[in-house]
Amino acid sequence: MTALAAGLDTIWVVLTAAMILLMEGGFALLEAGFVRQKNAVSIIMKVFVDISFGALVYYAVGFALMYGKDAGGVVGTTGFFLRGDLSHIRLGISSETYWLFQCAFVIAVISIVSGAVAERIHFKAYILYTIAMTGFIYPLAGHWIWSGSGFLARLGMVDFAGSAAIHALGGFAALAAAIFIGPRIGRFGPDGKVNIVPPSNLPLASVGAFILWFGWFGFNSGSTLSATNPSIGHIAVTTMLASAAGCAACILFTLLRYRKADPPMAINGALAGLVGITAGCAYVSDAAAMLIGAVSGIAMVLATEQLEQRGVDDPVGAFAVHGVSGSIGTLAVGLFAEPGTGARSGLFYGGGWHLLGAQALGLAVAAAWGFALTWGALRLIRAACPVRVSRDEETVGLDVGIHGVPAYSQEHDFLDIDKLRS
Amino acid sequence: MTALAAGLDTIWVVLTAAMILLMEGGFALLEAGFVRQKNAVSIIMKVFVDISFGALVYYAVGFALMYGKDAGGVVGTTGFFLRGDLSHIRLGISSETYWLFQCAFVIAVISIVSGAVAERIHFKAYILYTIAMTGFIYPLAGHWIWSGSGFLARLGMVDFAGSAAIHALGGFAALAAAIFIGPRIGRFGPDGKVNIVPPSNLPLASVGAFILWFGWFGFNSGSTLSATNPSIGHIAVTTMLASAAGCAACILFTLLRYRKADPPMAINGALAGLVGITAGCAYVSDAAAMLIGAVSGIAMVLATEQLEQRGVDDPVGAFAVHGVSGSIGTLAVGLFAEPGTGARSGLFYGGGWHLLGAQALGLAVAAAWGFALTWGALRLIRAACPVRVSRDEETVGLDVGIHGVPAYSQEHDFLDIDKLRS
Amino acid sequence: MTALAAGLDTIWVVLTAAMILLMEGGFALLEAGFVRQKNAVSIIMKVFVDISFGALVYYAVGFALMYGKDAGGVVGTTGFFLRGDLSHIRLGISSETYWLFQCAFVIAVISIVSGAVAERIHFKAYILYTIAMTGFIYPLAGHWIWSGSGFLARLGMVDFAGSAAIHALGGFAALAAAIFIGPRIGRFGPDGKVNIVPPSNLPLASVGAFILWFGWFGFNSGSTLSATNPSIGHIAVTTMLASAAGCAACILFTLLRYRKADPPMAINGALAGLVGITAGCAYVSDAAAMLIGAVSGIAMVLATEQLEQRGVDDPVGAFAVHGVSGSIGTLAVGLFAEPGTGARSGLFYGGGWHLLGAQALGLAVAAAWGFALTWGALRLIRAACPVRVSRDEETVGLDVGIHGVPAYSQEHDFLDIDKLRS
Repeated sequence: MTALAAGLDTIWVVLTAAMILLMEGGFALLEAGFVRQKNAVSIIMKVFVDISFGALVYYAVGFALMYGKDAGGVVGTTGFFLRGDLSHIRLGISSETYWLFQCAFVIAVISIVSGAVAERIHFKAYILYTIAMTGFIYPLAGHWIWSGSGFLARLGMVDFAGSAAIHALGGFAALAAAIFIGPRIGRFGPDGKVNIVPPSNLPLASVGAFILWFGWFGFNSGSTLSATNPSIGHIAVTTMLASAAGCAACILFTLLRYRKADPPMAINGALAGLVGITAGCAYVSDAAAMLIGAVSGIAMVLATEQLEQRGVDDPVGAFAVHGVSGSIGTLAVGLFAEPGTGARSGLFYGGGWHLLGAQALGLAVAAAWGFALTWGALRLIRAACPVRVSRDEETVGLDVGIHGVPAYSQEHDFLDIDKLRS
Repeated sequence: MTALAAGLDTIWVVLTAAMILLMEGGFALLEAGFVRQKNAVSIIMKVFVDISFGALVYYAVGFALMYGKDAGGVVGTTGFFLRGDLSHIRLGISSETYWLFQCAFVIAVISIVSGAVAERIHFKAYILYTIAMTGFIYPLAGHWIWSGSGFLARLGMVDFAGSAAIHALGGFAALAAAIFIGPRIGRFGPDGKVNIVPPSNLPLASVGAFILWFGWFGFNSGSTLSATNPSIGHIAVTTMLASAAGCAACILFTLLRYRKADPPMAINGALAGLVGITAGCAYVSDAAAMLIGAVSGIAMVLATEQLEQRGVDDPVGAFAVHGVSGSIGTLAVGLFAEPGTGARSGLFYGGGWHLLGAQALGLAVAAAWGFALTWGALRLIRAACPVRVSRDEETVGLDVGIHGVPAYSQEHDFLDIDKLRS
Repeated sequence: MTALAAGLDTIWVVLTAAMILLMEGGFALLEAGFVRQKNAVSIIMKVFVDISFGALVYYAVGFALMYGKDAGGVVGTTGFFLRGDLSHIRLGISSETYWLFQCAFVIAVISIVSGAVAERIHFKAYILYTIAMTGFIYPLAGHWIWSGSGFLARLGMVDFAGSAAIHALGGFAALAAAIFIGPRIGRFGPDGKVNIVPPSNLPLASVGAFILWFGWFGFNSGSTLSATNPSIGHIAVTTMLASAAGCAACILFTLLRYRKADPPMAINGALAGLVGITAGCAYVSDAAAMLIGAVSGIAMVLATEQLEQRGVDDPVGAFAVHGVSGSIGTLAVGLFAEPGTGARSGLFYGGGWHLLGAQALGLAVAAAWGFALTWGALRLIRAACPVRVSRDEETVGLDVGIHGVPAYSQEHDFLDIDKLRS
């Protein structure tokens, strides 16, 4: 019996972790499709950095700071390289299986930021920032929210699968990075006029969204960490309904607003719905899930417009999707959480203002932390190496400029490498 | 024990539902790869409509008509918005988990039709048709076949995972829509001569097929709705063998017939094999599965040719793959069903003509219903808005014409949006 | 209880088998992205041959030779078409479920070879070679290593999920095929000078890698064949760490060596790490996994260079990734295997030289067998039909030359098929 239960929990967590890791393929496609052809490889290389450096750093340091023995509600202190005392983690799965699942999460966080700095960040600077995010910035915020001993959790904040810990943190970090590094050359005219370029490959971007959608079922349902948690079915259903509502709302809203159903907004609308429901998927009703999804989608459209008007250049909409919808989702728990779901009741279910206050505080802390630490990290990195590529590299594109190879080649014959270089 | 069993069934259904939902990414790639570049985004937007509007409508209405309390063997009457009495559904999983799995099915049905109307249907008309299909047309046929109380089930028809309920219904609906809306401009010459254009992106289409193949293991095996059903292994094996046989048969058949192994036919051959085995995956032997797969594949090739010669324009082969192979698969159960599998024995296993008759009747009803109701729905929709885009929009392509953005852009620099529009 | 345990094992094996089969989509993308545009469809058609003909041949013959009743430690003798006595296979799953999982493996082996002969092998010859590999070459080597009665297993060789049986065998077969068939026209100048062409579609290739990565969690963890095997979590973690280390090592190594982080090497580095850990995923520590991954990655880069300098043309790096890293992974078990993991202890854990010797012998046998039998098979096939396409077909590309259709088409209008052909 025990072996069966342990086996069941283990395969559940391993399978859902694999689904979340596949989301990196989704991020890669989404971002490569949204940016210009000349930078499609460079954005994918960032995703490879996320998954490789991110996993190793989180193994060495991040996990310990996040889930190690608590010190003062602020930081974990044991478990570097998964060694030392982790006996306070009480789960049906081994601590290394738990690490794998959490590793998939941290890789998602850093991938959120990769989109906002697309087409202009220097590759070495990005590696350094990845180390900072996966080794320190996210693990600390994660400790406060998810370790059980963190101060935000003690104040009553809940965040089932990470609208705040993953998406608001990642989204505000993305905003900081986009502002810090500045807009792409030509994105805004001298008079502040907004210039645009269509996405280079919308079919790729769309499929990226479908892969992310698939992975999200692992993300949200897998966060139970136990296969016998009776909420799993409900979580999957609210996840589906919120994303459908987010996508449908963006289709209808852009049809009304632009007289055209806008494909990038339909894609990001589905993702906004998913981000929005991530905090409350286990706590809210189906109806609330649809409302959260629809509001998240429409807010994403408006935020995208606002950001453009303010001269902030976020090539794939990382802040609008993750920062804005993550905030909405975190706060929505304070309104819609139902009794008997593991969370305190929200404002609309007789729980008063307490949960909403805790959610607002937790959100403010996660967002501010993500923004401020990202800003600080990039300043530090700038002291060591350039954060932004040169004007020439940006003009020719990072694929050829930094990585020496174009994303797409229509050559049919072999080239003499010496002649090419002379 | 009960918690373990319930947990096991729940994660089985959630995981396989997620696999089926990922098939939408497969449909999107398959269709975007098969159509012309200028319509690649518009076909993907239809898939987003399928998954978003489809899920919401099926939640509000469709599920109740399909699985609500039966009235007269014809229609369900409870469970709108998953509320009301659903106690007659006796499963090891919750009714909302069941809804999620069924929701993935309805989205597949409407996605079948999307391919047949590619490159020319008006976007708003497609939204309205999606509502009709997912809210009424499919749920009623599904009730007759799968609700347990439906008149076709009572007559003895069986359809394990939907060769009739999903594929024949969807395929004949696709045929009706393709005829109703007419061929694309230039597809047939004034003298009826067949003109062609090569698929815009065969690698994308191929990967779409691999994703659909993966999802089909969820589709067929997951239809047990219980993880301890002893048929699961056999179902997965017949699914594999039928698709391999369908693909291999089409490779060899086109090698003989056209002197070239035809890539689009290899792709659709694998899918035809999958469609063919969907009704009988739990009931027939491995040998029968290979035969069904091979016959489905070859019939798909011949049907594709026939359709072209008759001037019907079905851009991705939706009728040939789903309508024809779905019909073959439904009838094949009447021949090959083996005793002790949960179905009555087929003609070749001593069961006489009864099962074959029930299958033929059920198939005829599902196909006629799908065809007639689609025709009727499109006539009604035509009263409210244009069903087909204008000649100009079709010529320029629906991506730019309707959605304002091309699928692929090779621009390397930003564009002044005002100059573009002037 | 028994039903629950059997159900759990069955869904575990079915789900992981489906994940491995999805790897064919990964292979298709990876290879189509790495080769030139004019051969992107032809390489995908080979993958369709792998999965369709491969599955059918392994069902008819291969599985019996591999897992049938042993004769002399050399070959299996029962189980053709899964009929006959297979009672010696003692697993918690049915023999047909076991077949499905093993079928996914054999398809991976042949897919390894497909990359090495890309852009020049004749399609009919490839079908015949696929039959030889999946029906005879791999099954015999698999019998020696994995059947329990094979002579290599009796000598103490261990290979958890196939660094030797799958990857070294497939990699050395790929090397033989690449040498036998010769380099592509223009790949090397008359003076042996290396000419290059950039990959046609790096975003596709990258996503292929992410899909392979996802599938590998099924490949390695699923090889337990039982969901209650307590190693599953550890296997998934070593798999993640080795691939992250392989990818990160290649990014850093190429940054130092070429002053550019090389995208194709980052992609293949992740895969090399996965290949390297496949033999030892259940037996080695996390630290050893990272070391194995990093060494596999760097060795892959060096092997790629060596192969080029020696005039061997392996378009996607099949030998460097699978042959070299598979060899490293097989030997590494002899060094790093830990007591209590199911394997004898390795050299560094007090087990002496025995295991290392067995691993070296097993590797030598698998590599030599794969190389020699592939060479022999291709000689035999050459007697029946051309192994290499004509010069004209190679120049125009195999897509149009052999399959009559280009991978990508930018046509926006329909073409009169008669005028095209006149």
